[in-house]
Amino acid sequence: MQPNECAKILQKQDNILIITHKNPDGDCLGSASALCSALRRLNKTAYIFNNPQITEKFLPYVSSYFAPEGFVPSYTVATDVASENMFSKGFSGSVDMCIDHHPTNTGYAPKLLLQGERSSCGEIVMKVIKLLCGDITTEEAELLYIALSTDTGCFQYSNTDASSLRAAAQLLDLGVDNNKLNTAFFRKLSPARLKLEGMIYDSMSFHRGGEVVISMVTQKMLKACGATENDLDDIAAITNRAEGSKVAVTIRELDDGSSKVSVRTSAGVSASEICAAFGGGGHPAASGCTISSTPDKAKKMLLAVIDEVMQ
Amino acid sequence: MQPNECAKILQKQDNILIITHKNPDGDCLGSASALCSALRRLNKTAYIFNNPQITEKFLPYVSSYFAPEGFVPSYTVATDVASENMFSKGFSGSVDMCIDHHPTNTGYAPKLLLQGERSSCGEIVMKVIKLLCGDITTEEAELLYIALSTDTGCFQYSNTDASSLRAAAQLLDLGVDNNKLNTAFFRKLSPARLKLEGMIYDSMSFHRGGEVVISMVTQKMLKACGATENDLDDIAAITNRAEGSKVAVTIRELDDGSSKVSVRTSAGVSASEICAAFGGGGHPAASGCTISSTPDKAKKMLLAVIDEVMQ
Repeated sequence: MQPNECAKILQKQDNILIITHKNPDGDCLGSASALCSALRRLNKTAYIFNNPQITEKFLPYVSSYFAPEGFVPSYTVATDVASENMFSKGFSGSVDMCIDHHPTNTGYAPKLLLQGERSSCGEIVMKVIKLLCGDITTEEAELLYIALSTDTGCFQYSNTDASSLRAAAQLLDLGVDNNKLNTAFFRKLSPARLKLEGMIYDSMSFHRGGEVVISMVTQKMLKACGATENDLDDIAAITNRAEGSKVAVTIRELDDGSSKVSVRTSAGVSASEICAAFGGGGHPAASGCTISSTPDKAKKMLLAVIDEVMQ
Repeated sequence: MQPNECAKILQKQDNILIITHKNPDGDCLGSASALCSALRRLNKTAYIFNNPQITEKFLPYVSSYFAPEGFVPSYTVATDVASENMFSKGFSGSVDMCIDHHPTNTGYAPKLLLQGERSSCGEIVMKVIKLLCGDITTEEAELLYIALSTDTGCFQYSNTDASSLRAAAQLLDLGVDNNKLNTAFFRKLSPARLKLEGMIYDSMSFHRGGEVVISMVTQKMLKACGATENDLDDIAAITNRAEGSKVAVTIRELDDGSSKVSVRTSAGVSASEICAAFGGGGHPAASGCTISSTPDKAKKMLLAVIDEVMQ
């Protein structure tokens, strides 16, 4: 459906719950909260799912939208959720509408507003809010800026296009303090994260003349720098900073000694092919898998598979 | 003067040399080269100064505009150069025109197009090129994107505003491959730089409850990671990533054992006040000085001064 139809349906609903996905990111949370705020401006009862997996840094912006315990919605909307197995709770089969930008959306919601060419779900929600309320408040603009900027790596990633930049410009016109948000989400690192990044750089090994780089995140390292789950956001991107690499592998030792593997690739090498060998998968340039071996053993197994794939 | 007058003057000139500043950055080089390309489209002889201090990463984009040895210009234009002491050579008193965005521009050029509210000089040159040629080529757009993106830290720094984002969107419309440029300028680090960043993180010491963070870059570290001048771009920003810090100090040991100091501050602490104590200076939030002592001694001296300033 088109944004117009989406807005028309929402205008008729009340007692609305907006659902976020497992380990919700800035786009998912920003989109959900901004939409929630707009629905409240229409005097509707609206909440976002009180997702237990939310990262601390988002709380100040979104916690006022959390649903109270026992809230029973009459209508549910999912934002930025591509498939039902990405829900954190038993929402399966109960979602009425989905607003999303993942081309891989499975179509699980009876009403789907999907724009796969947009870099963030927030950019689509922007249009819906304008249709719903005629305007966007500064607070909504701030939430949408969080959505747009986090999904594009602050306008650095390959999904950033002219439309993303123009949408962000509109949000700044509405009074968003982009310096404050960029500092919080992109420019400052916790002491634990700083130490961890240094250790990850230090752990890097280069193979195939630098085309393959592998870094390790062991339990010992995590303890040494006092890192918690909040400090582990997007650590695969750190390994991927290595110049000249086509395959960047991050091996993280889990509590039980097994290895969680993230693979980032470029230049036509398939990350999903590498991960498929270990029962994992994902996108051509970003995939993951879990290997029930120590990081050192996992590294050897991965190198063997990478050699095959790159031949 | 206004962009219109600037374009009218340039249309009447020929044999033009465009001058860049010491240690030229992306904005200076991108602005100069894009303007040079536009002037050549008007069948003029135009070059940019063959600046010996240029960093390797810019060469593929700008070297085709370098002036040949012995070129004698009839008209000289400086782009992004705030004062005559920023020239790398004896250009003093010979510059005919300056296009700049530094509010501190000293007015050394008889003809000055200054827009101090713009985040980059490239954004101003964009307007001039449109007036000169009616359009902007993809190659010029690429050079201007380098200018805009490097001066705003890829749209992350506090100078990024709606106008910067809209200008960047226009450049993408003209065919700029922003993913290629962002990867080259922001996302990938040389192996030496990766090692160095890790070492800098490792060297950080925290003072005054984390409000002051100091990191060290010694000759020994530079040798250990094989870093050259090309790997030292904006290293003060690394220290400034520490969450909660108001004063970020980077002390770099020079060849002769003395200390080059960069200070970055926020939350109202004056970096220039700190550096003035050692005969240096700069901006309120970013200043520098040189201390003729070893890094360890310099650190003690700096901490004493910072204590004074923060009291």
